[in-house]
Amino acid sequence: MDASLRAEFGVEGDWAQWKRHTIRWAECDLYAHVNHAAYLILFEDMRIAHWNSLGQRLAPDAPGPVVAQIEARYHRAAGFQDEVLLTLRPGTIGRTSFTHDYALWKGGLVFSATAVLVCFNNATGERLPLPDTARDLMLNRDGARPRE
Amino acid sequence: MDASLRAEFGVEGDWAQWKRHTIRWAECDLYAHVNHAAYLILFEDMRIAHWNSLGQRLAPDAPGPVVAQIEARYHRAAGFQDEVLLTLRPGTIGRTSFTHDYALWKGGLVFSATAVLVCFNNATGERLPLPDTARDLMLNRDGARPRE
Amino acid sequence: MDASLRAEFGVEGDWAQWKRHTIRWAECDLYAHVNHAAYLILFEDMRIAHWNSLGQRLAPDAPGPVVAQIEARYHRAAGFQDEVLLTLRPGTIGRTSFTHDYALWKGGLVFSATAVLVCFNNATGERLPLPDTARDLMLNRDGARPRE
Amino acid sequence: MDASLRAEFGVEGDWAQWKRHTIRWAECDLYAHVNHAAYLILFEDMRIAHWNSLGQRLAPDAPGPVVAQIEARYHRAAGFQDEVLLTLRPGTIGRTSFTHDYALWKGGLVFSATAVLVCFNNATGERLPLPDTARDLMLNRDGARPRE
Repeated sequence: MDASLRAEFGVEGDWAQWKRHTIRWAECDLYAHVNHAAYLILFEDMRIAHWNSLGQRLAPDAPGPVVAQIEARYHRAAGFQDEVLLTLRPGTIGRTSFTHDYALWKGGLVFSATAVLVCFNNATGERLPLPDTARDLMLNRDGARPRE
Repeated sequence: MDASLRAEFGVEGDWAQWKRHTIRWAECDLYAHVNHAAYLILFEDMRIAHWNSLGQRLAPDAPGPVVAQIEARYHRAAGFQDEVLLTLRPGTIGRTSFTHDYALWKGGLVFSATAVLVCFNNATGERLPLPDTARDLMLNRDGARPRE
Repeated sequence: MDASLRAEFGVEGDWAQWKRHTIRWAECDLYAHVNHAAYLILFEDMRIAHWNSLGQRLAPDAPGPVVAQIEARYHRAAGFQDEVLLTLRPGTIGRTSFTHDYALWKGGLVFSATAVLVCFNNATGERLPLPDTARDLMLNRDGARPRE
Repeated sequence: MDASLRAEFGVEGDWAQWKRHTIRWAECDLYAHVNHAAYLILFEDMRIAHWNSLGQRLAPDAPGPVVAQIEARYHRAAGFQDEVLLTLRPGTIGRTSFTHDYALWKGGLVFSATAVLVCFNNATGERLPLPDTARDLMLNRDGARPRE
């Protein structure tokens, strides 16, 4: 991420992927702020884009990452038509699971979350090892760490 | 909660409020399971019902609890038209914030979460002390504990 | 529908099914009114309940009604925690399609819609004749009319 | 719209505004298709973008267009990660209301709708004349017709 994008949104730390987003009417609630669940949907899109970037696809009949745990912090409010930056990075990688960090920025940190994702065969409900390609790209391209 | 309801859904622990729910079409995704964000909306309704039960109301111009943090665990999947039980209990209470535990049950635990809620004046963005009535009812009716 | 329920919500006309509903936080938008798309989700639930009442089930692998056309009128606004009544009736029935009328009431008519529904095999994408049981119940129980 | 974009999505007719979109996970349901209500949310964004392009803004305290009527036709199904084109054009303009045509394209027409929009002061609930700037731009820039 170049310095001007960092400065524009007040981004801190290193991130593997990012995307500009304008807050939608449908993402806001009666309080005129982004609803707490809407953030999770925004990062669902990021998670899928990241999965695709690992040479994988998400489909009802293909193995894919399922959210096992999520810890989210709402630091400040964002509002309708705010211009924000979404960022993602993988954290640690195990045999069948890995973590993602997510953050949303606008003049500094607005929202942050960490998710634990488990690789499932959705058809059989069976837990699967992460595909080698996915593991390698996360370790070597995205700066992820193996889980100790 | 009576013993037959506990047995019907495999509920463990003590809860202040509960509600039966049938999983809706709109709550499920391509994986034919409840989407991870849909759980948060279900418990948003519970949170508001609990706030109302404390003699408070939620409105754009009234002080109300805002989600500052949420930690959610997805233990098992739930599917379309599953009959489930939603449960809520306050945990610890501070001056301007408190916690809620949420759980969803169907033959045992499906989903659990803990939220940190902060009392805000939505119009001014000012953090407010919890109303005395709300605090008293949570401590004396709902089994909440003061934060040490 | 008995006279007291009619009077409570200002209902007009004859309806096959109805359900009380309290407007949810998630159904409202920044204007503090029910969002126009949220009405469609409310009646999706009614449509499925009606389909179930015809001895049918809705599932990814079962034939079911798919919305081919919908015409909706927003007569007045509804707001957060309003108590409303949802009503449904089948209109006309063809070989592979039928219509539904929907309405939402609160001191009179708030929202009304008519949908054209086509019976599909979702797996094959093939248009199917309505099951005989479903047709008979709509004609004889629900007051539907055959399409001329 | 240039010929290559028309050819790429099979667009017919003249449109005032358009936007590429990739179908999101959250827009699909158990049938693995875009849910019928999700189309309305997609065009809510287009409607707001168009309103902004008329020199107006949408906010809880500003006059804005409210959906009074919508007629939608679901011609074919769209699925997860499909690349589609959304198009919008104003149709006819009255004193306090106007119409929008919406369409979604992917190898031809997937979804089309016409909405009747009424200009409201959301704070007072009062019906308002369309701002002159908005009217002029729709007539002269967008090819809208005055209502006879």
